[in-house]
Order: sequence, then structure tokens, then C-alpha cells
Amino acid sequence: MKKILGLASAALIASMFFASCGSNYCAGGMIRTEVPERPAGQESMLGFAAPAMDTVRVGFIGLGQRGPGAVERFCYIDGTKIVALCDIIQENTEKCAKILKEHGRPEARQYYGDEEVWKQVCERDDIDLIYIATNWQSHAEIAKYAMEHGKHAAIEVPAALTLDEIWDLINTSERTRKHCMQLENCVYDFFELTTLNMAQHGLFGEILHGEGAYIHNLSEYWDEYWNDWRLTYNRDHRGDVYPTHGIGPVCQAMDIHRGDKMNVLVSMDTKSVCGREYYEKNRKNGEPAPEFKNGDHTMTMISTEEGKTIMIQHDVVTPRPYNRLYQLTGTKGFANKYPVEGYMIDTETASQNQKEAASKEGAAQISLDELYAHDFVPEDVKNALMEQYKHPIQKELEEIAKKVGGHGGMDYIMDYRLVYCLRNGLPLDMDVYDLAEWCCVGELSEISIENGNVPVEVPDFTRGEWNKIDGYRHAFKADAR
Amino acid sequence: MKKILGLASAALIASMFFASCGSNYCAGGMIRTEVPERPAGQESMLGFAAPAMDTVRVGFIGLGQRGPGAVERFCYIDGTKIVALCDIIQENTEKCAKILKEHGRPEARQYYGDEEVWKQVCERDDIDLIYIATNWQSHAEIAKYAMEHGKHAAIEVPAALTLDEIWDLINTSERTRKHCMQLENCVYDFFELTTLNMAQHGLFGEILHGEGAYIHNLSEYWDEYWNDWRLTYNRDHRGDVYPTHGIGPVCQAMDIHRGDKMNVLVSMDTKSVCGREYYEKNRKNGEPAPEFKNGDHTMTMISTEEGKTIMIQHDVVTPRPYNRLYQLTGTKGFANKYPVEGYMIDTETASQNQKEAASKEGAAQISLDELYAHDFVPEDVKNALMEQYKHPIQKELEEIAKKVGGHGGMDYIMDYRLVYCLRNGLPLDMDVYDLAEWCCVGELSEISIENGNVPVEVPDFTRGEWNKIDGYRHAFKADAR
Repeated sequence: MKKILGLASAALIASMFFASCGSNYCAGGMIRTEVPERPAGQESMLGFAAPAMDTVRVGFIGLGQRGPGAVERFCYIDGTKIVALCDIIQENTEKCAKILKEHGRPEARQYYGDEEVWKQVCERDDIDLIYIATNWQSHAEIAKYAMEHGKHAAIEVPAALTLDEIWDLINTSERTRKHCMQLENCVYDFFELTTLNMAQHGLFGEILHGEGAYIHNLSEYWDEYWNDWRLTYNRDHRGDVYPTHGIGPVCQAMDIHRGDKMNVLVSMDTKSVCGREYYEKNRKNGEPAPEFKNGDHTMTMISTEEGKTIMIQHDVVTPRPYNRLYQLTGTKGFANKYPVEGYMIDTETASQNQKEAASKEGAAQISLDELYAHDFVPEDVKNALMEQYKHPIQKELEEIAKKVGGHGGMDYIMDYRLVYCLRNGLPLDMDVYDLAEWCCVGELSEISIENGNVPVEVPDFTRGEWNKIDGYRHAFKADAR
Repeated sequence: MKKILGLASAALIASMFFASCGSNYCAGGMIRTEVPERPAGQESMLGFAAPAMDTVRVGFIGLGQRGPGAVERFCYIDGTKIVALCDIIQENTEKCAKILKEHGRPEARQYYGDEEVWKQVCERDDIDLIYIATNWQSHAEIAKYAMEHGKHAAIEVPAALTLDEIWDLINTSERTRKHCMQLENCVYDFFELTTLNMAQHGLFGEILHGEGAYIHNLSEYWDEYWNDWRLTYNRDHRGDVYPTHGIGPVCQAMDIHRGDKMNVLVSMDTKSVCGREYYEKNRKNGEPAPEFKNGDHTMTMISTEEGKTIMIQHDVVTPRPYNRLYQLTGTKGFANKYPVEGYMIDTETASQNQKEAASKEGAAQISLDELYAHDFVPEDVKNALMEQYKHPIQKELEEIAKKVGGHGGMDYIMDYRLVYCLRNGLPLDMDVYDLAEWCCVGELSEISIENGNVPVEVPDFTRGEWNKIDGYRHAFKADAR
């Protein structure tokens, strides 16, 4: 360490600071954000299950983009009653009313016309679940109000934009004993679900590193958002403003707050070129727009209590193929989704699993010789593996999911699981701490970047209970497996 | 920023420190290492060319692993004379003597028997170039001694392990006016060379982000290194100890120290599981080895003066397919090498380049309609692009390179170019500042990780001259292009 001079600026204070820790830096360069104490009498929502309900009565708020698809999917799910359709714009509620009619569903009351009308939906006494697909900026406010009025809340991604919003949702959920679930659909995509099942069966050994991303050129979509809320949010914020599709599936596979927790986050971004140019051309008549903040490409590294790492990327403006990365590096195997799906499994692990598989009737047989190489397993072996480890949820739903559609079926599976767990009185697949962990990357990455790429502490949103549950699992009713 | 509490430990000093910068953190959390002043009268090596020589007389030091292949490749290169063969082990020099004989080359003197014998090679007065392929730990010492004895030095990767070694090589090269080139072969691989040529023709627009890696499970190789130097080095060091294959090709495409420079680096690693287990099993008879330091997976993020970013990864122990990433994200296009090679180019760029191409006789014709999509260009379009933008060096050498081999021909091209530039009195393809920039990731990543993932300043190894050369280019003799 003898060559370390100290800090780039404020050199004197800095040198003192570094010196005070000697060669061990004491993690002293890390920024911490406030972790509010849990109010007395309030309990965690870990493992929380609401009383079972025969019918899930749902009110939809936000029917511009993602809302209509959700309404249609719910029409395919038994045990649901669509009670309210709400949007600022009447045309949007009417479009959804038509969907109900087409499916022979009873009429729902329509709410529209002003920016506060959603409160009337939350205030009804015949609704169990508020399904929120509005602009990002109103997600948390609506969800909080819904829970405060006795409703469970399901919120499109990202469910919260700031740490204030996140802590507010956690405290509200803990206080009201209402579910607060983020509608992260990518955790239900076929490859992710299958790979999660493989991970839970130990095929990859201990997962040491995971990667995820949202790399999706949105240039064809920016005009579709009410009041330009999406581009505006990107204009006003550096950092990974849309992290949940990338980090969600990785956190599930890495058992975050079920045996491990994220500790430290560091982010870095490029300047804005494509984003700023799009904004100048399409919103400023070609005038310069130095205020466009979101970097074209943003990276975030996260380390965990158990010595593992996660890397998340965000890029919605450059000409790149769609990519969510979804990659798991384990001590015994490796999985990678983009640009081609592939697995690598070492023979020892494969051998154990083959014995296990052989003992099950009708299990696909995979030749050991085919498995180990210094490359991905061949296509036919991959297919056999994916058949063998198809997730129970996928098996149950794949026919109907494909028929209903919605991002290849994953949206349907997400909604189905939400309703299934509510009807059976089970914990939901994603709790309010998942929401917090996946959303916090937004503001934490902004803090890291705006302070010179310094490490930032990831708060323990469970407030000390991250190690109480042993591994992530989906809940099923007792007679189901 | 109101939620920022300050630092995880040393909280009081830290709060003062953050407070002193207000909401602008002043990049105050960054560690700086010492940049020694350039001694008076010493000049930079930017653009340096040594006097042309008809024959390159070379002495090889280190003939265990990479050495014999280099000797053999030199046998195929005109205008070379292999004067000395040196290794601690006589068997190794004799093996190479046999190679010379097989190629009808004159005998070279053999040096072996002790750890200092290489000095005799450097001290000869009939050698122009010392080619160093010893263990990492001796690279810099030998190169320095060679230059001090009037020889150009070519050094296997990584050429230097510490900042002390790096500054020593820079100062020695600047003082002695001798080339000090790192033998980074991956910059000559076919996809990298072709893609560099495409980048230099503007196909990707401004390159904003680049990725590289060394992901290669070495479990079959650890036993092959003299005195176990390679595993030992991994045991004793956290950080990206082998960064050059990943960062080299990216830095060339991003014109590092030819218009841009790296400013800040942050690294993060996982714990050691596979590495430590291998070491315990194979070196400690199963006893615990808590001293094994190198994390199984290491990530490094780097930002540049021009607001661009680089991401580098290192993993030599987990069961993963070989991967050097090599990915370029530009404002107009995208290139990706692993696990499948692919390009995405937007139509506007393609259109300009098509006109350019059409004006050249016999250029491959690429249909515009085929180019733009939200995905990689189809295989046939990719092949046509790669033919159209095949690098002049590749065109000249591909037949012989494939015949000679050495990592698919790239090793031969590397050696050929080294000799070509020396014989023609041209600047080498990689200068001592490339060496410095690509190697510094080793110690800087170790500093970042050991201090809690803090940002570390990347020194300006050119000492103020990073913006003097306008873009990276290979040198050719006047009549060649």
C-alpha cells in the first residue's frame, strides 16, 4: 500500500482518513444510507401469508401500456373477479371493458378523468387486490394507499424509484399486513424458471456470480408513454433506472434474503450520446439538451455477505440486440441465456443428478460422456436437461400460458401464481423485500455514480432477518406436489 | 443526498469528509497511486521508431511453455536470426535447438543451468531483440536488464505485475530509447482485427463501452508451470491478475492514449472456492488453505476521460466455457465475440459504408435491408461484412498464419508484425504505454478490492501526452498501402 497517496481531492482530510485505518481500509470509503428502525410492534413480512380467499376481487389501475394485457390474462384465470378498471384516459378503460365483454366476464366499473380517481378504487370495500400498471412515478404512492385501505398491492416494475418509497412500502406492508408484490415477470420466463430449478437441485454447485441486464433499444417506444414520463425519468436520472428484469432472476437463484444478502454496490456509466441525441431530435427540435442525465450504458457490481457477486447492466438507447444476460457461474456448472442459451455442467455433479434422475420413472436419460467438455453441452443434451428440470410451475401451465401469451407466457404465469397463492393462503413468490432489493439499485447506483463510483452499502431491508429462511422456494398447496 | 449517513466505519471522520465536499463528492473517495515525474532530459516513447535493421537478431529467454512455439514461428519469418536459446532447464533449450535444426536454421548458443544465466544473453553484443517467455515474476526484471544492455524487449503477458515494475519499464524504455513491447496476441485474433478495422471505418459510430475477459478454466494446466509459479501467484493475489487478453483489444478499439485515457478503476471479486479447493487437494494434501487469495470471479469497471467505460473479467477456476468477451457497444453498431460472433449495424451507418464499399472494385455487396433489425445481422451478411473489412494485416498473412498456427494464427501475426516493424524502422503495434495500461489492472484491481471496492485512479502513464496521437493505427512501410 506504500504507493497510495490518498484522495484525488480534499487530499489532506483524505490522507488522514486513509491513514487512520492503516493498510486495512476498514471499508471506510463506503457510503451508507439510513436504515429506519422498525416501529415497535411491527413485524416482518417474511413468509407472510394472508387468509385464503375463494375469489380474488381485483381493481386495475393504469390501463395504458401493460394494463390491458393484464386484464385479458386475468380473464383466463379462475377464481378472479375484475371489479374496477381505472385510468386517467376514458378510452383506455373502455378498451378494457371491451376485453371483459369479449371474455364473457361481468362488467366492471370504470374510473377515469383525473389524476386522483385511482383513490376511489382503493377506497372500495369489495376489492382484495389492486393491480398497478401506471407510470413509474406513481407506483409507490398508489400501492401505499391501497394497502392502507386494506388491499393487497401488485405493482409493475420498478415498484419504487427511491429509498424513501421503498422504506415506505416496507413499513406500510409490515404495518397493514398486506402483500406488496412487484410484478417482475422475467423470473417466470422459461429459461429462468428451468435454470432456477436446476440451481435448486444443485446442478451448478454453489452459485458464486450472477449477471443480469436490461439491454433493449427503446427508440420505437419512447412516444408511447403518457406525458412522456419514461423518457423524462431517464433524462433526469443517472444510474440503472430499470434494474429489476436483470437482478430479479439472479437474486432468486442466489437466495437473496434467504441465506445471503447484498452488501455493497458500485456503479459506473458512460456519457449520454444516443439518449441525448434522441431527446434533442424528438423533444427539443434539435436544440442541445445537456440536461439529459442517463448514461447510454450503466454497469453495477454488487457483493454479498457470502462472498458472491452480481453484475447488472442497463442500456436502452444504443443499437444492440435485446439482452437480459441472465448468467449464473457456479462451482459445478454454468448457465447463460443470451445471445444463445447454454449450460455447462461438470461430470461429478452430473453423475449424482443422473442417479437421482434414473430413480424417477420416465426421466430423460442423459449420457455422462456428453456432459463434460470445455464448452456448452450439445443442443440435444441441453434440451434433455431442460426437459428433465422443467419447473413444476412451467409443467402445470405451459399449454395455457402459451395460448394466453404475454411475453411468451411468462406474464400469464406471473398473474396465475399471484392468484393461486392468494386463493390458497400461501406466501407470494416475491415479497416486499424482493421488491426493495431489486428496486434499490436505482437510487443506490445513482448515488454511487454521482459520488465518483464509490461503493454504497445495500441496506438490509429485512432489518436483521435475511438469514431466517433457508433458500428461495415457491409455495404450493399441501396436496399439489 | 440527504439520506447519506457517511461511511460504514470511521464514521465521524468520514462524515466530515463527505460534508466538506457538499453534494458534489469531489471524487474524494478515490485512491491515487504515485506518478513519478519524468526525469529531466528523458522523452516519451510515443510514436518511437528504432533505426531499420535488415536482420533481427533475437535471443529467446524462457523456453518452457510459450517459448518453443515462438522459436518455431520465428523460423518462418524472413530476416530473423536466432542467436541464443536460454532456459534454466537444459532439456528446454535442447528441444528448441532441435526446432532450429528441423527448419534448417543455423545453430544458436544454448544458455541454461541457473537462474541468472539469462543475463549472459542480454549482455551479448550481437543481439537486437530479447524475447521473454519466462514466469510472470521475472518478466520485468529481464526486460529492464535487456534494454539497459541495448536490446529491444518483447515480453509475454503480463509483462509487469506491479506499478513499480511498470514505471521501471517505462523509464528504462524512455531512457534507453529501446522498444518495450508486450506480446499480447489476442489483438491479432481474426475477429478482433476485423472488428478493429470496422471500428476504424466508423461502422460502430463512437464506441462507448467495451468488454473483455479471461475466462478459462486452467485446472488441466496448473501443473505445467516451473516451480508452480502460476498457481502460487494466484494464491498470493486478489484482483485481475491476468487482464491483458481482455483489455488489450478493447483499448486498441477505444484509442486509449491516442485521444482518450483511462481515469478510474473499481474492482470486485467473489470468495475463492474452486481455486482454494484445487490448491488444497493438489498442493496441501487436503489440508485447509485459507491463504488462497484470488477470487474465483473478478470484475473490473474502468471509466475514461471521454466518458466511456470498459468492463474486464477474470475467472480461471470455475467450470465455464472459454470466453474473452470482446464486445464493443457503439452509438451506431455493436460487436460481440463470445459465445457467438455477431454484429449489429444501424442502416444509416451501413448506408454510408455501402457507398464507400461500392466505390471500391470487387467489394462484397451487402443489402441494406438485411442489415438493420433488432438483432444480429444474419450469418451470410456477417460473413460478407467480415470479408469486406478484413484487416490488411490479415489479408497479407492469413495463409501462412494458418499454416504456422499458434492459437489459430494470431501468434504468428504478432511475431511477424514485431519483426516487420523492426526491419522497416516503424513504431511497433504496441508501445510501452499499452503495456503499462493493460498490466496496471493487476495491482490497481488488487488495491480497489483490498480497500473495499473503492475507485482507484488509473495513472496517465504517458505523463500528459495521452492526447497527442489521433487514434490507434498500425504502421506500414510507405509503399505497402
